[in-house]
Amino acid sequence: MELVIGTKTWSTWSLRPWLAARRAGLPFTETLVPLRELETSEAEIARHSPSNLVPVLKDGDLTVWDSLAICEYLAEQAPGLWPADPARRAIGRSVAAEMHSGFASLRGECPMDLGLRSQPPLSEATGKDIRKIVARWNSLLGQYGGPFLLGEWSIADAFYTPVATRFRSYGVHLGDYGDPGPAAAYGARLLEQPEFLEWEADALK
Amino acid sequence: MELVIGTKTWSTWSLRPWLAARRAGLPFTETLVPLRELETSEAEIARHSPSNLVPVLKDGDLTVWDSLAICEYLAEQAPGLWPADPARRAIGRSVAAEMHSGFASLRGECPMDLGLRSQPPLSEATGKDIRKIVARWNSLLGQYGGPFLLGEWSIADAFYTPVATRFRSYGVHLGDYGDPGPAAAYGARLLEQPEFLEWEADALK
Repeated sequence: MELVIGTKTWSTWSLRPWLAARRAGLPFTETLVPLRELETSEAEIARHSPSNLVPVLKDGDLTVWDSLAICEYLAEQAPGLWPADPARRAIGRSVAAEMHSGFASLRGECPMDLGLRSQPPLSEATGKDIRKIVARWNSLLGQYGGPFLLGEWSIADAFYTPVATRFRSYGVHLGDYGDPGPAAAYGARLLEQPEFLEWEADALK
Repeated sequence: MELVIGTKTWSTWSLRPWLAARRAGLPFTETLVPLRELETSEAEIARHSPSNLVPVLKDGDLTVWDSLAICEYLAEQAPGLWPADPARRAIGRSVAAEMHSGFASLRGECPMDLGLRSQPPLSEATGKDIRKIVARWNSLLGQYGGPFLLGEWSIADAFYTPVATRFRSYGVHLGDYGDPGPAAAYGARLLEQPEFLEWEADALK
């Protein structure tokens, strides 16, 4: 399998399936398309991707062109990426799909930038997104007992790892958004996972 | 199972899993939360949904709160909702997930309104979305031979049914966006399916 990804500092969409593939121990080669270098990257991406977006996964003749669909494809080969229990799996898919389509204000206002440390004022809409994420994390950590959202590490955690980097980069203290502690600890935990540390080291090289 | 949905005229997110459940013949009860009646609907929705959004699916103690996650949950109970072939299923998930997170301009500028017939000028960004959809539809119809995107009807078609209603409501002629014919025929076909006609009749009552 070949995973085509964007620049590691910025590409949240690439980070998610990359983490899932690494965590599952699935072998893949990595092709990096530099983003924000407009002269080369549009043509480069189009060469690899039917959606003109990264990431894409290539497996023989097959090209899978969406981050969530790639994660599902990987999960069919490495079942541990989703919980075995159907109800817990359905909750996990709700978490991942909600992240995939939602939280637009946070994503627009606080783009992932692994090298950045800043403390800008945040809009009310972004504050609302953060409160919702804090509530979601605490609810799931309480329900399943941690250390990850569904208990064991899953695709749901891959989807929230970029969010944890945003909270760090933009100096977001989750206690200011209704967190009694577990959500902040969980966010820190995501950033201590060996797969994320490997990605980060590559990004900051 | 109980499917909590929004007003049928407008709620694209509700239409998708509703079509999937009906098409699969899965029994469910339907609970309608009227949207755009702010005094009642926010509290009503919050009562049912951990995301404060519809649709949600309830099955015993389980609440699934995202339209794509609901479709996946249904597909685990009615395997015909995704193709049996893993590669075709991965393409289907790419299609559904891309729709779930993308095409923001079309979705913002042309909201689903089943009773509406209009012909407004459309922005360049929306035109670009439409071209991309036309290309996607033609590519898949060519690859798998139709009559639906992956051959047999699937969740991918559920995800594109709201788009077909938008093209009809806003007078979009796909020939103006690069369609030699198959995409327009496919869009019309989606709107002739008995499950959609049932939904539409309820919406326009």
